[in-house]
Amino acid sequence: MLESLREAVLEANLELPRRGLVTYTWGNVSGIDRDAGLVVIKPSGVRYEDLTAASLVVVDLKTGETVEGTLRPSSDTKTHLELYRAFPTIGGIVHTHSPYAVAWAQAGRDIPCYGTTHADYFYGPVPCARHLSPAELNEDYEKNTGAVIVDTFRHRHLDPDAMPAVICRSHGPFTWGKDAAEAVYHAAVLEEVARMAALTRLIDPSAMPAPQALLDKHYRRKHGKNAYYGQK
Amino acid sequence: MLESLREAVLEANLELPRRGLVTYTWGNVSGIDRDAGLVVIKPSGVRYEDLTAASLVVVDLKTGETVEGTLRPSSDTKTHLELYRAFPTIGGIVHTHSPYAVAWAQAGRDIPCYGTTHADYFYGPVPCARHLSPAELNEDYEKNTGAVIVDTFRHRHLDPDAMPAVICRSHGPFTWGKDAAEAVYHAAVLEEVARMAALTRLIDPSAMPAPQALLDKHYRRKHGKNAYYGQK
Amino acid sequence: MLESLREAVLEANLELPRRGLVTYTWGNVSGIDRDAGLVVIKPSGVRYEDLTAASLVVVDLKTGETVEGTLRPSSDTKTHLELYRAFPTIGGIVHTHSPYAVAWAQAGRDIPCYGTTHADYFYGPVPCARHLSPAELNEDYEKNTGAVIVDTFRHRHLDPDAMPAVICRSHGPFTWGKDAAEAVYHAAVLEEVARMAALTRLIDPSAMPAPQALLDKHYRRKHGKNAYYGQK
Amino acid sequence: MLESLREAVLEANLELPRRGLVTYTWGNVSGIDRDAGLVVIKPSGVRYEDLTAASLVVVDLKTGETVEGTLRPSSDTKTHLELYRAFPTIGGIVHTHSPYAVAWAQAGRDIPCYGTTHADYFYGPVPCARHLSPAELNEDYEKNTGAVIVDTFRHRHLDPDAMPAVICRSHGPFTWGKDAAEAVYHAAVLEEVARMAALTRLIDPSAMPAPQALLDKHYRRKHGKNAYYGQK
Repeated sequence: MLESLREAVLEANLELPRRGLVTYTWGNVSGIDRDAGLVVIKPSGVRYEDLTAASLVVVDLKTGETVEGTLRPSSDTKTHLELYRAFPTIGGIVHTHSPYAVAWAQAGRDIPCYGTTHADYFYGPVPCARHLSPAELNEDYEKNTGAVIVDTFRHRHLDPDAMPAVICRSHGPFTWGKDAAEAVYHAAVLEEVARMAALTRLIDPSAMPAPQALLDKHYRRKHGKNAYYGQK
Repeated sequence: MLESLREAVLEANLELPRRGLVTYTWGNVSGIDRDAGLVVIKPSGVRYEDLTAASLVVVDLKTGETVEGTLRPSSDTKTHLELYRAFPTIGGIVHTHSPYAVAWAQAGRDIPCYGTTHADYFYGPVPCARHLSPAELNEDYEKNTGAVIVDTFRHRHLDPDAMPAVICRSHGPFTWGKDAAEAVYHAAVLEEVARMAALTRLIDPSAMPAPQALLDKHYRRKHGKNAYYGQK
Repeated sequence: MLESLREAVLEANLELPRRGLVTYTWGNVSGIDRDAGLVVIKPSGVRYEDLTAASLVVVDLKTGETVEGTLRPSSDTKTHLELYRAFPTIGGIVHTHSPYAVAWAQAGRDIPCYGTTHADYFYGPVPCARHLSPAELNEDYEKNTGAVIVDTFRHRHLDPDAMPAVICRSHGPFTWGKDAAEAVYHAAVLEEVARMAALTRLIDPSAMPAPQALLDKHYRRKHGKNAYYGQK
Repeated sequence: MLESLREAVLEANLELPRRGLVTYTWGNVSGIDRDAGLVVIKPSGVRYEDLTAASLVVVDLKTGETVEGTLRPSSDTKTHLELYRAFPTIGGIVHTHSPYAVAWAQAGRDIPCYGTTHADYFYGPVPCARHLSPAELNEDYEKNTGAVIVDTFRHRHLDPDAMPAVICRSHGPFTWGKDAAEAVYHAAVLEEVARMAALTRLIDPSAMPAPQALLDKHYRRKHGKNAYYGQK
């Protein structure tokens, strides 16, 4: 079942350690088959070197039940499902504890858009989602983590296609994309952008975000109908 | 004697340079056989590439005497023994000079629990043990280093199973675990957590620790009878 | 056409990931044949592992038209052309998003000449070119990026041979040299110098530039008729 | 001539890029044969991958003349000679531009002895030698660089055996040891100690040096007649 999606999600998971984005078993990638309403996700706590396409877990988008697989799905599965339900255009999701993105999450601050590297991928500051309330923590924590992300996007009028990343306060980043591979690509870019932003503050703690016109220009070089970066 | 423990301690020592936790001969790992009352530990000043299971030193837990081996045991051996005596559930100990953990020790500060990466492994701030007094330094320094760690845990009512790490002021970290491999695992996680905490301060020197409820939630996802991270 | 220049530009492009200067497809290198009035440049958005000499694009220096090649040239091509036109002695140009140089650009500051490592290659602070105006952004952005760099050099009376680097505000670095290989060499040195300068500020945010006499001495050890570094 | 010294100096030079201490051709190692009064040193500006034992240059300790070799010796040769003349117990010298040691030199500050990693090798703060005067810069710069280092040690009553390192203001580090290999070992340790000290300041800019009694204890664990680190 879902052979090619399994292969794509396996490959995307294996890309995490190759890109230096994970330590030990931290982090997980999923991908979705929208027609089937099924999500393929990393099993919980399994080492990347032991992962196989067959060991991935298939979960029902609506019910969250495991449909195929003998291992437990990632403990963050309900967060993934919540995002797939709210953001209908996305096809893959990644969670990591990459250190610079985590540091911004631990500082409880949006990652400011200091320059074009950021603007090429993320249209505006990367939002830092609020802390969960004690009630949200103690009852269905992982589902509520997703719900708080979705709330953040609604309240701030953010488009998940133009802002394929969030950092959860005191926790770490989630990124997404049209498929699992693009979600990992955004996870790697986010970490690099978070690092550049931290280094910018090291040089000047009062550095200002880049002007809006420059950000617009760069985002539109790569996205939308007038994009002219890359090949046709 | 102690063939399988020797192999485990050798493998754990070799993991230190692989994880980038040591420079030259800095750092050492030991493991204990509680029934035999014997500790296997790295010899002092030997290069990791020259280590063999046979070159490890076997030391008596009670007397500290070398029971087997032609080389001198690690100069930190008495610190290890003091910890094994005081913390009866631990099976392996690691000492490194990994740079971010050392930096916190040199700054003389507990590593604050800024987020879930930390809370997944260490239940609260990682304690910074006090300086030794001149008397403690000059008489049985390494034994007293262990004694000060044990004192720190007693005074602060810390459980070594829930807090498998300490940083010694102006010196560096010790970590432990149920065996030598887990002690190294905790050494690697501590360094990553120490790095994230330093980066958090780079972004915001007045960053606050994460809320207690979030830390409780994350620690209990991984530890205790209601844990649900990983496979059964 | 231009076989040896193509090979040199290919090799210079491949040196970028080897030196850790680029993430994914970020960055590009070009080289010029002054007699032919032709520039060879990386195609836009192509992965470094897929680059071949044949896939490079040949562009006319005067018109900017593609003379040979089926792929689109780098989206930064017009910036390169503007620099080749204004700086007649340079033979190769590099653009990267290397993180420390980007951080200085995002902080909007010249990179101060704190020491001899910097002075050996760059005669004075590396200039940070100003933001483009909205009009400059919206009409021929890449050409105007080059024009603003050239303006910066004219206003500050900088010699592009003695200062083979610039950082564009909120964007990133361009470097150049007598050929594509030297341009990459300068890109790598700039990143290292930008890193050392950031670390200097970490240690002392009020650190002062090195004395002019030391900078003169070091620059002249390596450059000009009395240079005595290296082999004759 | 001097075959085994040539091999040792070659090997020590090659260790610099392996340890990540040099970029391109930056840095150089020499070794001395005290009986012959001859110094073997890296040629100037030669890439490490092209170095051979035969390409090393032999220089007379007294006159500074090249005795054997067709290439120019390192441009820093006169600094090495000045140190060999003033410090009769040392057998090898290294100069690098390793980034953290350079950052301290650029900040113009001694590297404080914040902890035991430092104290194990360097007995006290690593001194930052003063700027050269314009006269010293313009007349025999490299010899005067050595002279200022020697002056620094005399004025501060430093023993070059107990303090095998210096950082030259706005420039970078020199280290030494009983032979070329130990000089490189000290260069690598200095960089790690400089990094830990910078990270300590990142965490707490007002961090205090470690207590003298701890530094004494650690230095004497490794050095002098009562040392007990390592094997007999």
